[in-house]
Amino acid sequence: MARKPKFKITPIGGLGEIGKNMTLFERNGEGFLIDCGIMFPANDMHGVDYIIPDYRWLEEREDIRLHGVAFTHGHEDHIGAVQHVVRSFPGIPLYATPLTTGLLQVKLKNARLLKSTKIHTFDAGDTIKIGPFKLESFHVCHSIPNCVGYGIETPYGMIVHTGDYKFDNTPVHGRKTDYAKLAGFAQRGVVLLMADSTNADRAGWTQSEAVIDGALDKVFRAAKGRIMVATFASLVSRVQQVVNAARNHKRKVCITGYTMSEYAKIARKLGYLDVEDDMLVSIGQAQAMPPRKVVFMVTGSQGEPSAVLGKLAAGRHRQLDVRDGDTIILSSHPIPGNEEMVYRTINRLIERGADVVYDPIEAVHVSGHACQEEMRLMLNLTQPKYLMPVHGETRHLHLHAKLSADNGVPAENVVMVENGVTVELGSGGISIGERQPGGYVFVDGSGVGDVGRAVIRDREILAQDGFVLVSVNVDQRSGKLIDEPRIVSRGFVYLKDAEDFLDQIRDNITDVVNRSRNLNGNRRNLVEESLGKLIYNETKRRPMIFSIVNEV
Amino acid sequence: MARKPKFKITPIGGLGEIGKNMTLFERNGEGFLIDCGIMFPANDMHGVDYIIPDYRWLEEREDIRLHGVAFTHGHEDHIGAVQHVVRSFPGIPLYATPLTTGLLQVKLKNARLLKSTKIHTFDAGDTIKIGPFKLESFHVCHSIPNCVGYGIETPYGMIVHTGDYKFDNTPVHGRKTDYAKLAGFAQRGVVLLMADSTNADRAGWTQSEAVIDGALDKVFRAAKGRIMVATFASLVSRVQQVVNAARNHKRKVCITGYTMSEYAKIARKLGYLDVEDDMLVSIGQAQAMPPRKVVFMVTGSQGEPSAVLGKLAAGRHRQLDVRDGDTIILSSHPIPGNEEMVYRTINRLIERGADVVYDPIEAVHVSGHACQEEMRLMLNLTQPKYLMPVHGETRHLHLHAKLSADNGVPAENVVMVENGVTVELGSGGISIGERQPGGYVFVDGSGVGDVGRAVIRDREILAQDGFVLVSVNVDQRSGKLIDEPRIVSRGFVYLKDAEDFLDQIRDNITDVVNRSRNLNGNRRNLVEESLGKLIYNETKRRPMIFSIVNEV
Repeated sequence: MARKPKFKITPIGGLGEIGKNMTLFERNGEGFLIDCGIMFPANDMHGVDYIIPDYRWLEEREDIRLHGVAFTHGHEDHIGAVQHVVRSFPGIPLYATPLTTGLLQVKLKNARLLKSTKIHTFDAGDTIKIGPFKLESFHVCHSIPNCVGYGIETPYGMIVHTGDYKFDNTPVHGRKTDYAKLAGFAQRGVVLLMADSTNADRAGWTQSEAVIDGALDKVFRAAKGRIMVATFASLVSRVQQVVNAARNHKRKVCITGYTMSEYAKIARKLGYLDVEDDMLVSIGQAQAMPPRKVVFMVTGSQGEPSAVLGKLAAGRHRQLDVRDGDTIILSSHPIPGNEEMVYRTINRLIERGADVVYDPIEAVHVSGHACQEEMRLMLNLTQPKYLMPVHGETRHLHLHAKLSADNGVPAENVVMVENGVTVELGSGGISIGERQPGGYVFVDGSGVGDVGRAVIRDREILAQDGFVLVSVNVDQRSGKLIDEPRIVSRGFVYLKDAEDFLDQIRDNITDVVNRSRNLNGNRRNLVEESLGKLIYNETKRRPMIFSIVNEV
Repeated sequence: MARKPKFKITPIGGLGEIGKNMTLFERNGEGFLIDCGIMFPANDMHGVDYIIPDYRWLEEREDIRLHGVAFTHGHEDHIGAVQHVVRSFPGIPLYATPLTTGLLQVKLKNARLLKSTKIHTFDAGDTIKIGPFKLESFHVCHSIPNCVGYGIETPYGMIVHTGDYKFDNTPVHGRKTDYAKLAGFAQRGVVLLMADSTNADRAGWTQSEAVIDGALDKVFRAAKGRIMVATFASLVSRVQQVVNAARNHKRKVCITGYTMSEYAKIARKLGYLDVEDDMLVSIGQAQAMPPRKVVFMVTGSQGEPSAVLGKLAAGRHRQLDVRDGDTIILSSHPIPGNEEMVYRTINRLIERGADVVYDPIEAVHVSGHACQEEMRLMLNLTQPKYLMPVHGETRHLHLHAKLSADNGVPAENVVMVENGVTVELGSGGISIGERQPGGYVFVDGSGVGDVGRAVIRDREILAQDGFVLVSVNVDQRSGKLIDEPRIVSRGFVYLKDAEDFLDQIRDNITDVVNRSRNLNGNRRNLVEESLGKLIYNETKRRPMIFSIVNEV
């Protein structure tokens, strides 16, 4: 008798974090994806604009029919690669809640893919059919409205995929994480819980977004001049909170920056941002108003130099500047790796006269992810047989696994994999299957995947010590130099201040070339070796070294 | 009547932080320094090993006689530039407490400057004379033993310089911050308090080092295999706490790494590290012992790839490896900018099978600096007329200034300057004086100061998109190319995968060169412009572009 086909789950891509940006679910040659997001490069991934999950192996698989992509919510790390995926799998339908659909449409429009892509929009709580699969969506609280997780029926019990979530009992938009649905899944039998691990190293509960209202009120009350609030463009509920505070304190709101304006427009249209027309003003109007009457919403809370706050800090914004008496609120936490840029930005804003408020000075931001007690609650609500901690770095997954033992899932029932490794669910339980090649694909400029590890490694070496290139013209017959060696160098030393050293380099090369007829080995290698030694001895640095030898 | 000469204070250098690494005190042509430390480069200061304060203007000043350098404590950011300063000011005497002297001696010995340098060693609480100046040292708690601040007599009242401090009431080494002496200064009249601002954004009190004992005990009790504790080499009190925990749990201690071993040796010799001979084992001995019987002390708690922990994470340590069942404690917090590397290291260690414990999982580290309530206590103990917040980024200085208003120092009596700006104290009060040029000097390899902003900027561009260089040989008479252009490129695209694009580049250059006789302008510029345009249009990248044109 043929064995029942297994249900397989493969997390794809994700830089540092596992099971976050994109996940493949498949059974018996049929499949679907949950999310397709991008990652932002680490500080040592020089010149990379963003990173997409490496799903090239999936494009090559002929044994699977992909029926669609279901989205959990509209953040970049969950929707940002949609144009790449739609190009790779032409005609693949998308499934999303209204706000997520709105944000997907912007991306697809920019990529000229909107008309050719079918998006099925559903409401949180709806059940959707994707090919042979049934997905029961359930609402979760996070830091953007309209987030869902999915209950997925399998022959082995239900899989619950939480998406990004927290249990906020007083959320800005009123709708709570769907306790009833989660408990209902438990009654039907949850075989596997795939749950967000982001804050697994934080005890207790994530604070409700409601605490921010109090903090904003306090800061608004004290502010004597203009107020600027920096946050993520996609943090629609935070924009709502700022609008509410502005309304209470009789200030108008000016939303700046292209992305934030676009997000706000969509959120308003779809009813996720409640703001009266006459509360919104343009930058020009805002500039003409008394400072106490206006709040600016700006991007750049991660210290990005090209966002509004970064430009304000550097004095490079074309319409706005920071003045004495301005109050600037950073309603965000630095993402690990961004701390240095964030603090530098804060320092510059203060130097320009602003009063800058950020957590921990006031509770102007809370996380959008569950802390330890919420993870326990999720385990206790869904009562899964197995746990697959996802959406976190290795350290978070391990801590999530640790706490599950006290909440019904012993260590032997926890499955932790790296991205690209398949988890298989069958009648015999859960097991680890194949490993797919690859991890992620760098996007740099218009190139997708042409910048690989080797190029990044070269950039790292160039960043450390620069390069030195010498070009020499050699007489074919005599083997002697016919003119002075030319030297091109950048990132090594400032050549104009190093005339003596340049002379030393020229002498060295002249000597090696003129002797090289009698030396064994390739002339170029001889030049490069000799030059490398000279440079290291003199400077203890190792720039990249190149030579061009013209025989004329 | 001639006016009484003012007492002048100039903070020097400091990357991001102000008034930390080095400070000049002077009056009437006589002066002394407090501390001369180094800074570590920001993530975008490519290839820089470390940074020293830029005191070149002080070397050039002929109107001042420097009588010595007084040190507050033995951390790198306070003593690390001693060899540079001793070379710049030959014969300058140093003043330090015994442990700081021990650490200075190691640095001077490595630089072959030990014999020619006079160090006056004193105990915390002693009064020292440096030229015409009288400095009354007082003990402060921090995260290395033997720290002091200074009370400095001036004709205008006392200046109190706290150094790095916190008010730990149960410190590891027993000695408290000297409340009596600080209160005594207040009775005599403190005109100016220069105080540590590091934790000005943290409410309450810094926890005592004593809490770490409890956390270590808990982790040691649970550990079933080997334990490794990573911390700063200079955190001698932490080494003591680990030794105490090891003693209680009947484990031996193996101190690994050159720097940590050196620090421990000096601290033991001087009585700041209490550990029995038979408790210390070598790596070889430790490897031969049962895993439950040993603790390794390692460096690398900031994720530095070249330190012991970094090598263990990468599997590149020659003698040690990480195994299933190991418990690794990170007894430190990431310094802003290091988070990404620290978390990456933790993830890799977990992947190798270790259980990794760090704050906030357990309270295995506390800060060495005062929080807000301690800053208030310092203000209330010393009752200064003026406050000069130091040792912090701009944001910390401003918050320190804010809280002082509630503690006897109104805003108009707070003086905040950047590094290089002189604060002047006279009978008329306090004022801001001259600004000195410079900020800091990069040390890269054996070069001090030869890598400047321009070189760093070039490294940044090279890191982003690499470079492309073309070399062409042109017939002098016809102006035509005589052979194929040669192309050297790194960090741009992987050339072996880009043959078509290389052909396109060659065609482009050939075309431009062959037409260039009839074109206006310099041939090299024409080649570089054309190539830059082609590359940007095709890739949306902007590598550095160079050309060499040989006329033969």
